[in-house]
Amino acid sequence: MADYTQIKLDIADGIATLTLHRPEKMNAFTRVMMDEIISAIDTTDADDSVRAVIFTGHGDRAFCAGADLTPQGGGHVFSDPNPVEDLSDERVRDGGGRLVLRLFNSQKPLISACNGVAVGVGATMQLPMDIRLAAEDARFGFVFARRGITPEAASSWFLPRLVGMQTALEWCMTGRIFSAEEARDRGLVRSLHPRAELMDAANAIAREIADNTSAVSVAMTRAMLWRLSATEHPMMAHRIDSRSIYRLSRSADAKEGIASFLEKRTPEYPDTVGADMPDFYPWWDEPAYK
Amino acid sequence: MADYTQIKLDIADGIATLTLHRPEKMNAFTRVMMDEIISAIDTTDADDSVRAVIFTGHGDRAFCAGADLTPQGGGHVFSDPNPVEDLSDERVRDGGGRLVLRLFNSQKPLISACNGVAVGVGATMQLPMDIRLAAEDARFGFVFARRGITPEAASSWFLPRLVGMQTALEWCMTGRIFSAEEARDRGLVRSLHPRAELMDAANAIAREIADNTSAVSVAMTRAMLWRLSATEHPMMAHRIDSRSIYRLSRSADAKEGIASFLEKRTPEYPDTVGADMPDFYPWWDEPAYK
Amino acid sequence: MADYTQIKLDIADGIATLTLHRPEKMNAFTRVMMDEIISAIDTTDADDSVRAVIFTGHGDRAFCAGADLTPQGGGHVFSDPNPVEDLSDERVRDGGGRLVLRLFNSQKPLISACNGVAVGVGATMQLPMDIRLAAEDARFGFVFARRGITPEAASSWFLPRLVGMQTALEWCMTGRIFSAEEARDRGLVRSLHPRAELMDAANAIAREIADNTSAVSVAMTRAMLWRLSATEHPMMAHRIDSRSIYRLSRSADAKEGIASFLEKRTPEYPDTVGADMPDFYPWWDEPAYK
Repeated sequence: MADYTQIKLDIADGIATLTLHRPEKMNAFTRVMMDEIISAIDTTDADDSVRAVIFTGHGDRAFCAGADLTPQGGGHVFSDPNPVEDLSDERVRDGGGRLVLRLFNSQKPLISACNGVAVGVGATMQLPMDIRLAAEDARFGFVFARRGITPEAASSWFLPRLVGMQTALEWCMTGRIFSAEEARDRGLVRSLHPRAELMDAANAIAREIADNTSAVSVAMTRAMLWRLSATEHPMMAHRIDSRSIYRLSRSADAKEGIASFLEKRTPEYPDTVGADMPDFYPWWDEPAYK
Repeated sequence: MADYTQIKLDIADGIATLTLHRPEKMNAFTRVMMDEIISAIDTTDADDSVRAVIFTGHGDRAFCAGADLTPQGGGHVFSDPNPVEDLSDERVRDGGGRLVLRLFNSQKPLISACNGVAVGVGATMQLPMDIRLAAEDARFGFVFARRGITPEAASSWFLPRLVGMQTALEWCMTGRIFSAEEARDRGLVRSLHPRAELMDAANAIAREIADNTSAVSVAMTRAMLWRLSATEHPMMAHRIDSRSIYRLSRSADAKEGIASFLEKRTPEYPDTVGADMPDFYPWWDEPAYK
Repeated sequence: MADYTQIKLDIADGIATLTLHRPEKMNAFTRVMMDEIISAIDTTDADDSVRAVIFTGHGDRAFCAGADLTPQGGGHVFSDPNPVEDLSDERVRDGGGRLVLRLFNSQKPLISACNGVAVGVGATMQLPMDIRLAAEDARFGFVFARRGITPEAASSWFLPRLVGMQTALEWCMTGRIFSAEEARDRGLVRSLHPRAELMDAANAIAREIADNTSAVSVAMTRAMLWRLSATEHPMMAHRIDSRSIYRLSRSADAKEGIASFLEKRTPEYPDTVGADMPDFYPWWDEPAYK
């Protein structure tokens, strides 16, 4: 396991738990934390034993209080005396965006267990996750317009897909802090839980995926839904899912899926993401920053 | 009327009712059923008397229990000893996808009256329909990941448009069966009805369309909403709806629509989909499978 | 202030109120009204004191009862004896569409205070606004199919982004009038208010934006959410928000945003939309009608 300094990564029984971990800093986001989360997702993708990843924050108060604006957090770039002039330069790239693009490409399901305050990048980093649970007293805020900046981490792309345009616009144009109840009522969060039961609830969903589904199926499903839903015509989806059904219906996992279903028993899928993704995967060329 | 063997098609008083009909098989989906539904939609499109199509399943238990995996259902393709190598070959195409692409292009409104279990393609075939009603005890499941395969029938494109990304991901990554209540609460289903009242409720909506609207207007509206909502900029919609308003505002149906409104009477629209679609329709080139 | 004849525009304390104003005509929409609203938005965009625009209708009954089909309303184009043959001609363009494309490009937040009946273009003109409030007894209708025409004002693009495909299809294919409660329950309207309190509620949201956020941030946020959410991949958003964070984090507004936050005081942002939008704005080429 890598030697993380601002997160913790625990893997047990098929489930990885990634804890943002900056005690006394409300788990505020830094470049170091970005690098560590990206490295952790590289690990969970490469580890065939991992079937789902749960994100949470250390401590009682915060999931993540946003970007750390102090010099030790990397906030000094805001006062860099020699700013880059060419905006296509890699150094211009937003750190939250680099993180969420990695999460977007995760092969394992990502579940947020939002245990407290989640503002700024603490909120936007949760958007490319698949399922969001929250503590009843969690609070959220897309506060950028109250700091003189704008939404980042590709949240203008992700947030309307989760809550529709009206709510996305209201939250981002007022920049106000809002409650976990509002987050659930508008569709950002799937369900609320007493804080003491939050991790159990997240683990139950991860467990349901791990115990019942094919890892290859889930990795494919994740890429298909996020990517194909954004295309202009259902034919794009038909091209990919035809290939997928054609290949996977002949797989060992499909044999086991049907056999276990007919025999009414728990499946034991033999295929792995590491070895058994279909030959046409990935079917896309990832766009570059420019 | 064609000689269907796995569906029934009844047309009366402007409304077509298409019943999936495989007694003792829970109306499981086959290639024959696919061909028959496609043929039925060709019929309802060509018949100017048909103003809406209601889909339901025969019997008390199921709308459609998914793909019939037995040899007589076409399930033998899963063990075809000589699989096609070229994935752009037409033979690779998913049957559910061929069906939903035909439904996507229906010129008549499609209303689902989901009378029971709807899993796999029994669920995904309902997504390109326009309005979904369900019996209170219906159940749904996008179960693909529990069978070692993936979502099909272009459902990665359709499902997020109906329920948002979070719910689509949860349903497809867990593969679990869920209740009609959950289907309604998350937006998949418009309303629930006691099973004995389900067809009446579906007929009432079909009736409202048939009695009050122009068939040409509805066919255009259906194509415009499904197609133009998926483009990148509202100018694409403005190009089409400008043409549409310009042509149709000079139509006999527009004269009757305004006259009947001013006279507070039921309209009698003279125009038909067969003869009176505007000259620029269809405005698109349908993409090919490849 | 321009000499408007069918609207009123009042600007006070950072908030513009645009009132559709055709007494005895239920504020029905005309080409003159279209020109006047577009002119008013040019004014609110150019006036750096304006932080939000509230739309409402004059009187007790209607927000806007749709297009005025009488000759004085411009309805005579429907019986123009010499229709244009080339549908790419500018004269073919739908007036509602020309209006909403201008609203789409507003640099100030648009808030609807829908005080009564809103049908046809009275409903569709509200879709590109950011937040919609309504009186408890307001009513809505996308009635086009009941008039022999089709949705206009690019509503096939806007409406599904607000309420999802199922509701958009139902409302447009039945053409029925529906209540404010239904509008809120399906997500078209954010909240309902007693008619006497409607303008106070709209002003409270406008006030929250005006008092707490950077004008440059809000103008950027509005363009980013509406435009980048409709692209195919989050990389498109990452390209723009990286540039935005990079430039704006070095702005005077960002300094004030962080300082006022740390000092727990009301911010006084110095930057203006007129002078301080980042150098890469606008980042798009606006598509032309053709």
